[in-house]
Amino acid sequence: MNNFSFSNSVKIIFGKGSIAKIAEEIPADARVLMTYGGGSIKKNGVYEQVKKAMEGRELFEFGGIEPNPHFETCMKAVELCKKEKIDFLLSVGGGSVLDGTKLIAAAQFVEGDPWGILVEGKQPSNALPIGVVLTLPATGSEMNSGAVITKDATKEKRDFNSRLVLPKFSVLDPETTYSLPPRQIGNGVVDTFVHVAEQYLTYPVGAKVQDRFAESILSVLVEEGPQALKTPEDYEVRSNLMWASTWALNGWISKGVPEDWATHMIGHEITALYGLDHGQTLAIVLPGVLSVMRGEKGAKIMQMGERVFGVSEGDEASRIEQSIAKLEAFFVSMGVKTRLSDYGLAEDCIEPVVKRLADRGAVLGENKTITPEKVREILKARV
Amino acid sequence: MNNFSFSNSVKIIFGKGSIAKIAEEIPADARVLMTYGGGSIKKNGVYEQVKKAMEGRELFEFGGIEPNPHFETCMKAVELCKKEKIDFLLSVGGGSVLDGTKLIAAAQFVEGDPWGILVEGKQPSNALPIGVVLTLPATGSEMNSGAVITKDATKEKRDFNSRLVLPKFSVLDPETTYSLPPRQIGNGVVDTFVHVAEQYLTYPVGAKVQDRFAESILSVLVEEGPQALKTPEDYEVRSNLMWASTWALNGWISKGVPEDWATHMIGHEITALYGLDHGQTLAIVLPGVLSVMRGEKGAKIMQMGERVFGVSEGDEASRIEQSIAKLEAFFVSMGVKTRLSDYGLAEDCIEPVVKRLADRGAVLGENKTITPEKVREILKARV
Repeated sequence: MNNFSFSNSVKIIFGKGSIAKIAEEIPADARVLMTYGGGSIKKNGVYEQVKKAMEGRELFEFGGIEPNPHFETCMKAVELCKKEKIDFLLSVGGGSVLDGTKLIAAAQFVEGDPWGILVEGKQPSNALPIGVVLTLPATGSEMNSGAVITKDATKEKRDFNSRLVLPKFSVLDPETTYSLPPRQIGNGVVDTFVHVAEQYLTYPVGAKVQDRFAESILSVLVEEGPQALKTPEDYEVRSNLMWASTWALNGWISKGVPEDWATHMIGHEITALYGLDHGQTLAIVLPGVLSVMRGEKGAKIMQMGERVFGVSEGDEASRIEQSIAKLEAFFVSMGVKTRLSDYGLAEDCIEPVVKRLADRGAVLGENKTITPEKVREILKARV
Repeated sequence: MNNFSFSNSVKIIFGKGSIAKIAEEIPADARVLMTYGGGSIKKNGVYEQVKKAMEGRELFEFGGIEPNPHFETCMKAVELCKKEKIDFLLSVGGGSVLDGTKLIAAAQFVEGDPWGILVEGKQPSNALPIGVVLTLPATGSEMNSGAVITKDATKEKRDFNSRLVLPKFSVLDPETTYSLPPRQIGNGVVDTFVHVAEQYLTYPVGAKVQDRFAESILSVLVEEGPQALKTPEDYEVRSNLMWASTWALNGWISKGVPEDWATHMIGHEITALYGLDHGQTLAIVLPGVLSVMRGEKGAKIMQMGERVFGVSEGDEASRIEQSIAKLEAFFVSMGVKTRLSDYGLAEDCIEPVVKRLADRGAVLGENKTITPEKVREILKARV
């Protein structure tokens, strides 16, 4: 196990009816800006629940944060925060709303252009406190300090990380996920699976607790994911998916072990250039990364194969093949297709992705061996 | 899954050489009291490492905190804190030193007799901040807000819980555990196992993440525990045991599920009356609790049997028997005996334990069905 230092102070308020408790978590005199997305919260009753819980409080609203939240949209919210002297942000929605809210929280506390947080590693000096009502299990943003933001003007999708934007609390009510369309459930399960893969499918360092926790989350996804599509209002199933997705990226399973993140970096470029859903890009890229990088990742791929998918027959090469095939079949069973051509993309989509990564000097993977050439090889295998 | 609210802000600093970092975690102008036990830290180099890390700081010392830390001893440290105007406590040792330190931290902030924290549920209004250098993986106290204290005068062993005594940071250096005697390793592994059991071997609530995390910790103990006795200076093995024992009782695996704690409550009385090690009492009591309460706990006992010990043959009754037998054999393999008679105790030791629990009106277990009569039945099966 590698050395590490870490803490995660986010307060989780889990379970049905929990939205009613948010006012207790927010200072009584706070001027609160509620941020949300395209309005699904107005259809599924979450908006009303939040309004009721916040009755008598100073509550402002900013809707319209899009999937892959736009930098430009967030900057409008920053103006509103300044004008209304907002001192608490309440993010109501999925990971995109929350990631946008994290940027809103930090942007006014950075010198110069806030885009510098995303591309130059500028750190904010402070941030507005954030509370969360989560309605989509996927990104894990509700219990971490990261955010992914897209600049619409240049189609750049980048991320930042700051302890200052770690939520003060996150409300996880599984009932809020009942009305999610199957496409979002599928994407969310794939995203969660790949979060774990990025922290687990690297090389062994003998960290048995972390390995087994990672396998625990993957096993829960494999058991509960398809069930969530079949019986959308099964509280137990939705509870387990929601809790699994928080644990997939709250930081703890990555502590003491190597991390990859190549699949996410490649996937971000595909979303930025061609507009695919985040989960879709991951379902395409991960099998390719595992297949091309099997020389480095083989031992862990086989461990996952055995413990998560029950692959226990055959020689090493065969077990690796079987494990990757099972993983890909699982993504397909969640309704998320795994080939570029499934989304109308052909081989000519690859070079722009490779060029963008090459231009940034990006060399990816836990061993820094996934060069732009390797990215080309990975994507050619995924047409 | 049941509803819950929880956070755990403890910063973990994990790995070899980490003691050197403690000064960064303690305010530069703090008047620090270092607390420790019987002096083993002076033999294994930990004392010197702490002194070196704290060079130039105002550092006071209070040694002699005993296993099953005495209330009376802690009160002497409270006097020292007042006299020297201590404003930070640094606990260097195992769970007993730390539990004692938690009481020291809180005692001067409670009205009247501080024993009230233990027996009347009095809450302190404040507590001195605590930092931890852990040298014995067992109690999980390094990442939780609980403590167990014994009043020597009356042989009462009781616990308290306060968010105010949650450590600010805990340093976990597996190398500090190399010199532990086998008896302490055995007791520590049993203690860790039983912590998980108290939060897992109850009744199913469909909480699959928590169940699998619990099984992860148990599996790591079963794999690494015996190895720790064979090759004491194996860094990987000691790392996994140390990390497993922290996770067994940092609160997360119990969130959303029922909890038992009958084994601990019965064990505490046996330690208080007859002086057995904490781990020894747990190894005696748990197989009895599982056996007598199998009607309520059967489903989870079988789940553990299958996933942790590979018990997959036979009917329900047989699987439960096999699972309990495997668990008991595991304790024995750790050098911890599992019968009262192994420690020179006969059937006449039972009534005083039953009486103490009855006098306190204690009715134990996740369903509050472990009455004093059941305790008698459990212990009679353990002679």
